[in-house]
Amino acid sequence: MINTYAAKEVGGMLEPFQYDPGTLGKDEVEIDVLYCGICHSDLSMIDNEWGMSSYPLVPGHEVVGKVAQVGEDVVGLAVGEAVGLGWHAAYCGHCACCHSGDENLCAEGLPTIVNRGGFADKVRASATAVVAIPEGVDLAKAGPLFCGGITVFNPLVQFDVKPTAKVGVVGIGGLGHMAVQFLNAWGCEVTAFTTSEKKRDEAFELGAHATLNSRDEDALKAAAGTFDLILTTVNVKLDWNLYLNSLAPKGRLHFVGATLEPLDIGAMGLIGQQRQISGSPVGAPQTIAEMLDFAKLHKIEPIVEEFPMENVNEAIQHLRDGKAHYRIVLKK
Amino acid sequence: MINTYAAKEVGGMLEPFQYDPGTLGKDEVEIDVLYCGICHSDLSMIDNEWGMSSYPLVPGHEVVGKVAQVGEDVVGLAVGEAVGLGWHAAYCGHCACCHSGDENLCAEGLPTIVNRGGFADKVRASATAVVAIPEGVDLAKAGPLFCGGITVFNPLVQFDVKPTAKVGVVGIGGLGHMAVQFLNAWGCEVTAFTTSEKKRDEAFELGAHATLNSRDEDALKAAAGTFDLILTTVNVKLDWNLYLNSLAPKGRLHFVGATLEPLDIGAMGLIGQQRQISGSPVGAPQTIAEMLDFAKLHKIEPIVEEFPMENVNEAIQHLRDGKAHYRIVLKK
Repeated sequence: MINTYAAKEVGGMLEPFQYDPGTLGKDEVEIDVLYCGICHSDLSMIDNEWGMSSYPLVPGHEVVGKVAQVGEDVVGLAVGEAVGLGWHAAYCGHCACCHSGDENLCAEGLPTIVNRGGFADKVRASATAVVAIPEGVDLAKAGPLFCGGITVFNPLVQFDVKPTAKVGVVGIGGLGHMAVQFLNAWGCEVTAFTTSEKKRDEAFELGAHATLNSRDEDALKAAAGTFDLILTTVNVKLDWNLYLNSLAPKGRLHFVGATLEPLDIGAMGLIGQQRQISGSPVGAPQTIAEMLDFAKLHKIEPIVEEFPMENVNEAIQHLRDGKAHYRIVLKK
Repeated sequence: MINTYAAKEVGGMLEPFQYDPGTLGKDEVEIDVLYCGICHSDLSMIDNEWGMSSYPLVPGHEVVGKVAQVGEDVVGLAVGEAVGLGWHAAYCGHCACCHSGDENLCAEGLPTIVNRGGFADKVRASATAVVAIPEGVDLAKAGPLFCGGITVFNPLVQFDVKPTAKVGVVGIGGLGHMAVQFLNAWGCEVTAFTTSEKKRDEAFELGAHATLNSRDEDALKAAAGTFDLILTTVNVKLDWNLYLNSLAPKGRLHFVGATLEPLDIGAMGLIGQQRQISGSPVGAPQTIAEMLDFAKLHKIEPIVEEFPMENVNEAIQHLRDGKAHYRIVLKK
């Protein structure tokens, strides 16, 4: 049996819940969970915001642990090895995305939470979705890299961001504080967009070269034509045309934050200077592996607050209250 | 003196107008105009829609002619050579865009019409903006390549569109009918989006492999996940989220048509499948040169209706009435 914490109804508190995972699949890996990060999307899933939750629902998709068992067809992962598991627990393996190294875009990708998540003593997943963690990476802090981290790292790979690029990061929170570190190590000139005085100082410590108050319209206007990339991690509506205008020619406004209101972009703001707008979700296993190597080399770690897993409801409330600084990890 | 047809007031009929161009600049070329295309942006400039017109205004930015004189510092262009001139008559020559081969994005680029356009017997421009036309290209039809043509060709170069791409062209008009030809020769599978029965047949003749009625919501929905690129040449508001949805993972919705209403795009439609939206204006001189070679090789020509230049007002009315098929060229 696997022991978990599960929501038994929409928005419910998490309660102990056991399930029988059955026989281990030939391609599956069972992980002994050591740590599991909490992400905003865990809340969205608990609350069934995306209409894809079923209950009892076991959240948790920033899993770090050790391989407990491997299925008979699994190669490349050994019992006892440190591994992580992110948003996806399996991919279809036969679509164009899977065949192109874009498993994260697989339309049939199985979200870890839709399966059974990592707020548990064990979790199972397809071996293709489980990524080995290089020695030297602090397992207590690695969890958030598997969702928040890869979400901000992946666009740098996807869009071939140059180390000479000037990059703005909008929102210095769970995602943004990792983005600033990655971009600094990537060689970029990094500007942190934030309204908080405290986060301003921390942004500099994380590697920002400049900050910009994102509520200061004049400052934004003065930055016209500056940024090759603006990475927005927030989920609120901002004046996107003003952000577009702060892009350099050929610049990109990239969304990883799930802002729900329409973007209200003017086509003329795209055409004149050949600007572009894009979005992306997490990343493929190979990109996760590259991120882990890069994070290890450059000593990039999320700033985490640790809660014992049995205090999961307290941890969730802390996140709901907007008090997470910057990312919460549950310790089994 | 240079003899032109000019609008003397906003929206005015064109009337004969002479001006003295002064001494030829060291870096300038004077062109004996043979042909000049008419583009919708000539109408926008006559009507001062973009607030940058001054009068008397000489329209015309799809100029084809022969070099009449070259300034003393001009190299690479000789008197008598066939050349063309498009949207820009000069670039600043010292900005990052100019230094990167992106002169078309130069913020100080001088529009040919803001200077003095090609509805004239002669026109002058900076040599950097004048592009030689390879022998074998029909000069009577080359004009529209210099604005409409390069506007649809340039994105293929900018975004490294692969010959294996599935591409939709929205709007089979002045721009779209050239886009279909370019894309067919580029190797792509081309779908023409059009509502007109007549244009549907012509689209096949131009090289489309399929057509799709852009007002048929069901057909659009059935095409979900299909296109690597949708190139939209129209200036009306469509249901862009439906178009986004018809993109394959990593697909691009690209605007070259100056649609003025906000695009109303949902960020979630970008994030899930890593889709992108972009826009671009004309192209740089080097890209124009490559387009001309490509057009020559593949026998790509706009379909034009020819009017004598003295009938310019009749030609303009024909375009205003939406009757151009597909592109109008004035013959000097």
